[in-house]
Amino acid sequence: MTDQPTQTGRIIISVDAMGGDSGPAVVVAGIAKSADKNPKIGFILHGQEQELRKLVAKRRVLDGRVVFRDCPDVVTMEDKPSQVVRSGKNTSMWSALEAVRAGEAHGAVSCGNTGALMAMSMLRLRKLPGVNRPAIAILWPSRNPHGFNVMLDVGADVRADAKDLLQYALMGASYARNGMALSRPRIGLLNVGTEEHKGRAELKEAHAMISDFADQANFEFVGFVEGSDIPGDKADVIVTDGFTGNVAIKTGEGTANLIGDLLREAFKYSPLSRLASILAITSLNRLKKRIDPRRVNGGVFLGLNGTVVKSHGGADATGVSAAVKLAFTLAESGFAEKLAARVASTAALAQDAAHSVSQSE
Amino acid sequence: MTDQPTQTGRIIISVDAMGGDSGPAVVVAGIAKSADKNPKIGFILHGQEQELRKLVAKRRVLDGRVVFRDCPDVVTMEDKPSQVVRSGKNTSMWSALEAVRAGEAHGAVSCGNTGALMAMSMLRLRKLPGVNRPAIAILWPSRNPHGFNVMLDVGADVRADAKDLLQYALMGASYARNGMALSRPRIGLLNVGTEEHKGRAELKEAHAMISDFADQANFEFVGFVEGSDIPGDKADVIVTDGFTGNVAIKTGEGTANLIGDLLREAFKYSPLSRLASILAITSLNRLKKRIDPRRVNGGVFLGLNGTVVKSHGGADATGVSAAVKLAFTLAESGFAEKLAARVASTAALAQDAAHSVSQSE
Repeated sequence: MTDQPTQTGRIIISVDAMGGDSGPAVVVAGIAKSADKNPKIGFILHGQEQELRKLVAKRRVLDGRVVFRDCPDVVTMEDKPSQVVRSGKNTSMWSALEAVRAGEAHGAVSCGNTGALMAMSMLRLRKLPGVNRPAIAILWPSRNPHGFNVMLDVGADVRADAKDLLQYALMGASYARNGMALSRPRIGLLNVGTEEHKGRAELKEAHAMISDFADQANFEFVGFVEGSDIPGDKADVIVTDGFTGNVAIKTGEGTANLIGDLLREAFKYSPLSRLASILAITSLNRLKKRIDPRRVNGGVFLGLNGTVVKSHGGADATGVSAAVKLAFTLAESGFAEKLAARVASTAALAQDAAHSVSQSE
Repeated sequence: MTDQPTQTGRIIISVDAMGGDSGPAVVVAGIAKSADKNPKIGFILHGQEQELRKLVAKRRVLDGRVVFRDCPDVVTMEDKPSQVVRSGKNTSMWSALEAVRAGEAHGAVSCGNTGALMAMSMLRLRKLPGVNRPAIAILWPSRNPHGFNVMLDVGADVRADAKDLLQYALMGASYARNGMALSRPRIGLLNVGTEEHKGRAELKEAHAMISDFADQANFEFVGFVEGSDIPGDKADVIVTDGFTGNVAIKTGEGTANLIGDLLREAFKYSPLSRLASILAITSLNRLKKRIDPRRVNGGVFLGLNGTVVKSHGGADATGVSAAVKLAFTLAESGFAEKLAARVASTAALAQDAAHSVSQSE
């Protein structure tokens, strides 16, 4: 960061400015929002430098807070992860991760192709020692006092065995402690029923393993939870495989969007209902804000050497700013280091536990 | 039905009056609603006869339309399916299924324990020839013109291989034709992305098999769909395994309930918003009715020799009546017979298809 000495003391977020559905202007608007709210934040911006310099020049709040990295290529939403890891060295996504790998930035944010970002992150940042499958964790609106639950995995990998689910529990607990300030998070394991005899074999095995680790990893294990508990208040962290998690959050999002659209229609139906919608606008906006997915935009990649936040491809400036804030919060809390220590200290024990569970069966 | 000669010409629904969360009074209120709307319906009511007779006597519309079957025992929500199939012969649930098996009723409805009902149904009604795993299909509010999509399996079995998923597609298509009058239903296979290379191995195999059957089974295959398409308008029938389906619908329900509660809170917030809620009440009630789960109450068990509808355990009279109506509609359309014919005609072909797919890999 030789070209920007004013960055000293700031927490630096490495931002892939390309690859989102709305283009780099929205990304720059998003980081400007973050810079405006947070004097402790600085950026390395990756993409077509000429274009980015123009966009940044329009935002006075970004003066002296952005370092540029020129990248000729962009990963598109259609690119296959397997190709991108081979031929993607000149992309803004690669460059954004490289800055984290080299220790120049404290975390990375990208709105690009999720599969490509995960494949590249695994290649460049490498998995934490002891982690078999990294996971993507998101926040979901819930009935809990803090307003959101952590859910993982929501799509890093379509498979997860009992040991992977244990690691998700450990990583999710660490995330809830550092990202949401919950000192002793409650962990639930997603199943089709709460009775211990229900569900798939790997879930019964994972139930025993997670239960064994609750005390030493400082979380509370509430046992099996159901889909209805994802937005509920029974657990703070919902653990599942990436296939189930991905389907569940997309179903929840789709249902919420349908209700939102039908609500708007209902309010347009008659003169009386149109008047009602004007009277209720403040209350409805408050509700909207409470469950606004943009406010909690950002899937965090867990289990890597470094913090990577995947912002929604269709995120607007508010969404990008939320993802940047998440990367900042985690960087400031020293999350990556704490998670690495947690996983390392339990990895050996997990091996033992897996061993004894499989022997006892 | 010797004690009720007036039932002649009616479609007879066998109703398990016990085992729901709200007791037999709600079940009787529900069948009275149905009887009031539909002169072509008659009932066999299973449970503690003395109590049921008292409840029925209060509803004039049920005069001469109910046959009673006295059953001393009740399956509770806590009973394990494996126990119930051994020791449940004197329960109202068993008796309700027995009436279908004996050909005295055209379909059965129960609000009881889902797992027990499925286990008993498999034991008493037996699987259709060619069906490996029966499935539970539900209707989910959607953006489609008919207002709902069919989704299966939502929890009959936590496993499903490619051949099972093909059978679900065939059974779901048949259900959509007979239950929803869609002549050529669009079938989608649930996955974590719409690209053909995504997801688990059994899904890729199922994709090929379902695609091969689309023409001869008279449905359109739209390929992979995502969780967001469950309430969407891309497909009419969503096919998935029972684990994923169960988690998805419970997540959707939980999210919808959370939004509903927050909406009520929002309208209570200020005098202005309270006034707004009064002005908007008609519109909001219309919205509520549109997505009211009670209106589409009833999971249909597919793949058995006979129609069984599982009503929600917490259903009120409106919910019970909706489940009864569903059983009636399916019975009237000759659904069970058509489905049996469809599965039989494709079972042999499916075997061949599975064989050729596995050979080509």
